Amino acid sequence: MRGIPESLNQLINEFSRLPGIGKKTAERLAIYILKTNQDKVLPFSDAIVNVKNQIKLHDLCHSFMEDSECVICNDLSRNNQILCILKDPTDIFIIEKTGYNGLYHILGGLISPMDGIGPDELNFKSLFKRVESFNEVIIALEPSSEGDATTSYIAEELKKIDIIVSRLARGVPVGASFDYVDEVTLTHSLNDRVKYK
Amino acid sequence: MRGIPESLNQLINEFSRLPGIGKKTAERLAIYILKTNQDKVLPFSDAIVNVKNQIKLHDLCHSFMEDSECVICNDLSRNNQILCILKDPTDIFIIEKTGYNGLYHILGGLISPMDGIGPDELNFKSLFKRVESFNEVIIALEPSSEGDATTSYIAEELKKIDIIVSRLARGVPVGASFDYVDEVTLTHSLNDRVKYK
Repeated sequence: MRGIPESLNQLINEFSRLPGIGKKTAERLAIYILKTNQDKVLPFSDAIVNVKNQIKLHDLCHSFMEDSECVICNDLSRNNQILCILKDPTDIFIIEKTGYNGLYHILGGLISPMDGIGPDELNFKSLFKRVESFNEVIIALEPSSEGDATTSYIAEELKKIDIIVSRLARGVPVGASFDYVDEVTLTHSLNDRVKYK
Repeated sequence: MRGIPESLNQLINEFSRLPGIGKKTAERLAIYILKTNQDKVLPFSDAIVNVKNQIKLHDLCHSFMEDSECVICNDLSRNNQILCILKDPTDIFIIEKTGYNGLYHILGGLISPMDGIGPDELNFKSLFKRVESFNEVIIALEPSSEGDATTSYIAEELKKIDIIVSRLARGVPVGASFDYVDEVTLTHSLNDRVKYK
């Protein structure tokens, strides 16, 4: 843009690369940075670098860890009898908000023959090695064809050992009106119906 | 938040400090950074630091400049007979979008006796020193009591010299329905009415 210093233009471009941030918002954010005191801006820049430098994946559960310590696996207050299987490490953050207090195992993807991703490409070896120490496994994968294929594969493999295997219920989202729920979801919610005691 | 590495938490906090970015969006952006390749993330972090380090204010027009050169004052393709007076250097970006091709003078604030800001606290000395070389001055300050006071002050001072002084028209925003325009704006738009030739 004319009349705009090059380094401001670059920051606008960087902001507009973020998901859901349009050109207008990127300009607003970049101008905010420009107007803000240096001592408030540098921690932001540092935080970006730190996230990339300090966060690694744990060998055992394949979730994020910092300072060579997995905050989840090493948390003794957690229930180490229940294991939740997820696709991505970032899925942990939303599951944590539900109050779930067990451990996790991250697959790193879903089985997708179309994309050449079979069980060998995912973190199954480490899963089957550790799974016997748990009482229950919750498979929490997205309801897509790849998610369903991966869920079936895990459930089939775990039949060989004595362990409770469950998956997330599918159904009507809280707050949703029936008018806006598709029939596939509604069918799932009928199939996953829960008995009143 | 539980189960979230500390450096990710810090980045979420930094993002949520930005204007218009809520907690949810901050989480989404921080997770995006975490998932993105290092070589795409480092330029973002650098761009933030660069904006703060490389952009200074020009002594003459008080707008942003980089590499000790003011991209506006030094642009020979601009009309150096017309001067637009603005409050903040960032106001330039929006005026530039209109296709305005003259020069600028940034006041650095508005006259506000309540806040102890008089003409001496603003960039008036340098304005009155350079203003005689222009044919026309456009005062483009916000339509507030401080903006109006500052506009009057400038107009009064410039009466002493032979120069055309104008201010921005006030009126109905393009696309706005009359139902949503307040009567003060509508009064201004009547007063600022433009004759058909």
